[in-house]
Amino acid sequence: MLRATAALLLLLALALGAAAQAGVSTHPAAEGSCAFGLCHSGEAAAAVDDAHRGPAGVLEIPQRFLMGPGPANAHPRILAAQSLPLLGHMHPPFLAIMDEIRQGLRYLFQTSSNYTLLASGTGHAGMEMALANLVEPGDTVLVGVNGIWGARAADMAERLGGKVVTVEVPAGRSISLQQLTEAVEKHSPALLFLTQGESSTGVLQSLAGVGELCRARGALLLVDTVAALGGVPFLADAWGVDAVYTGSQKCLSAPPGAAPLMLGPRAVARLRGRTTKVVSYNWDLNLVGNYWGWDEPAPRTYHHTGMVSMWYAVREALALVAEEGLPAMWARHAAAHAQLWEGLRALGLEPFVEDPKDRLTTVNTIKVPEGVDWSALSRHAMERYSVEISGGLGPTAGKVWRVGLMGYNARPANVELVLAAFRSGLALQGYRPAVGAAAS
Amino acid sequence: MLRATAALLLLLALALGAAAQAGVSTHPAAEGSCAFGLCHSGEAAAAVDDAHRGPAGVLEIPQRFLMGPGPANAHPRILAAQSLPLLGHMHPPFLAIMDEIRQGLRYLFQTSSNYTLLASGTGHAGMEMALANLVEPGDTVLVGVNGIWGARAADMAERLGGKVVTVEVPAGRSISLQQLTEAVEKHSPALLFLTQGESSTGVLQSLAGVGELCRARGALLLVDTVAALGGVPFLADAWGVDAVYTGSQKCLSAPPGAAPLMLGPRAVARLRGRTTKVVSYNWDLNLVGNYWGWDEPAPRTYHHTGMVSMWYAVREALALVAEEGLPAMWARHAAAHAQLWEGLRALGLEPFVEDPKDRLTTVNTIKVPEGVDWSALSRHAMERYSVEISGGLGPTAGKVWRVGLMGYNARPANVELVLAAFRSGLALQGYRPAVGAAAS
Repeated sequence: MLRATAALLLLLALALGAAAQAGVSTHPAAEGSCAFGLCHSGEAAAAVDDAHRGPAGVLEIPQRFLMGPGPANAHPRILAAQSLPLLGHMHPPFLAIMDEIRQGLRYLFQTSSNYTLLASGTGHAGMEMALANLVEPGDTVLVGVNGIWGARAADMAERLGGKVVTVEVPAGRSISLQQLTEAVEKHSPALLFLTQGESSTGVLQSLAGVGELCRARGALLLVDTVAALGGVPFLADAWGVDAVYTGSQKCLSAPPGAAPLMLGPRAVARLRGRTTKVVSYNWDLNLVGNYWGWDEPAPRTYHHTGMVSMWYAVREALALVAEEGLPAMWARHAAAHAQLWEGLRALGLEPFVEDPKDRLTTVNTIKVPEGVDWSALSRHAMERYSVEISGGLGPTAGKVWRVGLMGYNARPANVELVLAAFRSGLALQGYRPAVGAAAS
Repeated sequence: MLRATAALLLLLALALGAAAQAGVSTHPAAEGSCAFGLCHSGEAAAAVDDAHRGPAGVLEIPQRFLMGPGPANAHPRILAAQSLPLLGHMHPPFLAIMDEIRQGLRYLFQTSSNYTLLASGTGHAGMEMALANLVEPGDTVLVGVNGIWGARAADMAERLGGKVVTVEVPAGRSISLQQLTEAVEKHSPALLFLTQGESSTGVLQSLAGVGELCRARGALLLVDTVAALGGVPFLADAWGVDAVYTGSQKCLSAPPGAAPLMLGPRAVARLRGRTTKVVSYNWDLNLVGNYWGWDEPAPRTYHHTGMVSMWYAVREALALVAEEGLPAMWARHAAAHAQLWEGLRALGLEPFVEDPKDRLTTVNTIKVPEGVDWSALSRHAMERYSVEISGGLGPTAGKVWRVGLMGYNARPANVELVLAAFRSGLALQGYRPAVGAAAS
C-alpha cells in the first residue's frame, strides 16, 4: 500500500549502495519485487525514529574490589575465557565442554550422580529450577527460614502451588537438628529446603544428620549453597543431599549467570514420577537434562541455546577448582576468615552471629557499633579504596556490614584492604572501641 | 561426632599453613573451637573424593564461521567487553549500564515505551517471561503456528494455564491477515502470538494490519523477533505491537544469554491488572521491572543478580546498533541475502519458501535437491572451511539447509565462504543442476 514511499526508496538505495561497495552485483529482479525483504513495504515505510538512538562509545568499566556478599571479582583466566570465539550450542566441541562441566560439578558437589548441569540463570534460577521440578501442586514443602533465602524459597514454592510450612529461627541463628526433626515429623513434607550459607545473616547451617532424617521420613532434601560452595565443606553424597544448587559468581570466581545444579537418584525418581507437567518449559529438567546428556546414550536434542561464553567461564572456573583442590580451597577461605577477624577484633568489632559454630567464613556479618554510621563507612571504603563493603539485607539491614571472602577474593591482600577501609573509616567517625573489646 | 578425624586435622593443617604463608598469625581460639568454619566436623570429616576431579588445563576454542540459524559469531568488540572487570549488580555504574541498555532497546524496538529490559536467559526465556506475565490461567491464547516457534509458544502457554487455540499454515508459508482476522474473531483471544522470523522454515511473517486487528478486538499482540530483529524492519509503536522479545545471539552479534524484551502500555496495563500472581518469581515483571527502573522514581531494589558480563555485551551490541543505524543494518542484511541467492541460483539451488514476499533475509532455507545428501554437504563445509551450514529443524528436517546471515556475519566475505562450501560440496557429490535451473 505504501510500497513506493520515500523511506522504502531510501532503504533500497542504501542496500544497493552497500552491495555495490561490497563489489557484488545485485539482482533484485531475481527475487521478484520483494528483494531485500522489504516487500512488506507498509511495515518498512514508517520512518525510523532516532529519538532514543544510543548508547554511544566503547564501554569502560572502573576496577572495583567486590568484597560484599557477591558477585565477587572474577578470576582473570575466567574473564579471558569469555572473549574466546563462540561455538554453536549443539556443536560437538561445545557438547564436550558441557561434559567437562558436568564432570567438574560432580567433583565440586562431591557426588557420583550423573545428574549435574547449569541452570541458565543466576542463583535464583537454580532455586526456581529445583523447586519447579521437585514440587507438584499440593505438595507440602518445609522451608527453613533464618534469613532472606528461606523466605525467597517459600515465596517461589507457593507460586508453584506448594503448601508451604516453615521452621523459623531469628536472624543470626542456625536451625537445630532437633527443630528440624520436630518440624519434619509434624508436617511430613515432600521436600525440605535449607540454605547452607545464609548470606543475609552470615550463618552457616549445619547439615549434620539432616540427610538421614529426610530419608527416614520420605522427604527430599534440597540445599541452597549459593554463598558457600567452594568456600566451606560440602559433600552431597556423604550427607544425603538429594538436590543442590549454587551460583557462579561467589566462590567459583565466575561472572553471575549460571547456576550449577545437581539431582541425586531420589530427586530424579521424584522428577520422573511426576503426575503433572513442570509449569515452566525453560526449567523442565526432563527436557533440559537431555540437552546436557542426562539421557545418554539417547541422543541430545535442542532445548534452548546454551549460554556459550558463560559456560566457557564456568568450565574454566571448574578447572581452577580441580587444579587447586577442594581441601585447599576450603583452607584458603578459612585462612582469609581468620585473618579478617583478627584484624576486625583489633578494631573492636564483633561478629553478628553469636555462636562461633554458626559463623559462615565466606560471608562475614559484622555488628555496626553504637554511634557509627554504617553507610558512611561503606561509602568511604568505595570512594577511597574502590572496596565494596555491603550493608545488611532483609533482617540485618542497618545492623551489620557484610564482607565477602569468596573465590579469587579470599586472599591476604584483599583482606588487608578491607581492614584498611574499616580502620580509616572508623577513625574518620571518631570511633574508639570500648576498653577490653579487642580481647573478647 | 567425628570431630577429631584425620580429615579435619588435615584441613586445619592446610588452613594454618595457608595463613602462615600469608604472613598472618592465626588465633583459632579467638573464634572458639569452630575456627575455619569446620566445627561442623561431622560434615567435613568424610574424605574428599577425587574420582571426578576435573577438568584440567586452559580452555581452547576452535574458530568457526557460525552461518547457521544462530548463534552467529559475536562481534570482536562485544567479546572484548566480556573480559572487562565485574561490577556489583546494584552498583551505580552498573545501574547506569542498565539504563543505557533500556535506551538502546527503545531504539532497537522503535518504541517510546519505558518498559524495556533484558530477560536473564536466551530467547526461550524472553518467550516464557512474556507469556508468564501476560497470560493468566484460563485466558484464551491464539498462537500462529507455521514452524517450531509457534508450537513452542503453544506448549509454554498451555503449561502456564492458558487455553491455547492455534491458526496454522504449512511450513514455508506465512499466515495471512485474512486468516488471522477470522481466527481472532472466532476465538476472541486475550493474546495473539506471532513469530516475525520463523527460523525453522525461513519465513518472514508480515505484521501489517495485525496491530490494528488486535486493538479492535481487545487482544494483546505478542511478537517473537528472535531470528529477525536488527536484520529486517520492525517498528513496535508504528505497528501496534504490545509486547516483543528477541535474542542477543542473532543480528545483535552478542553471545546467547540475554533476551531483550519490551512491553507497550496495553501490556503493562494487563500486567498491573492481573488477578493472580505470576507463577514464576524469576519472570515476574512486577519485580524484575523494578530492578530495571520501571517504577522510577521509586527506588530500585534487588530482585536477582544481573548477568554482569552478559549485560556488558548487550550494552556494547546496542552501541554498535546505534552507531550503524537501523536502516543501514537492514540494508546490509538485505545485501547479504541478495548476494547469497545470486550465488545459490547460479548453482541451481532454489528457495524453500515459495512466495518471495515471505522470505526471511536473516535465515535462508534452501531446498535440498533430489539425490543430494544434505548432511554430507554440511559436514564438508565444517571440515574444509569451518563453516556451519545447518540442516532443517522440525517441519523442515531433512528437506532444507539453513543459512544464517545475521549481525557480524552479514558481510560479503562470509557469504562468499558459504557459497564456496556449497560449490565444492555439491561438486563432490557429483551434483549438476538441471538445465535452465540457474535462470529460474
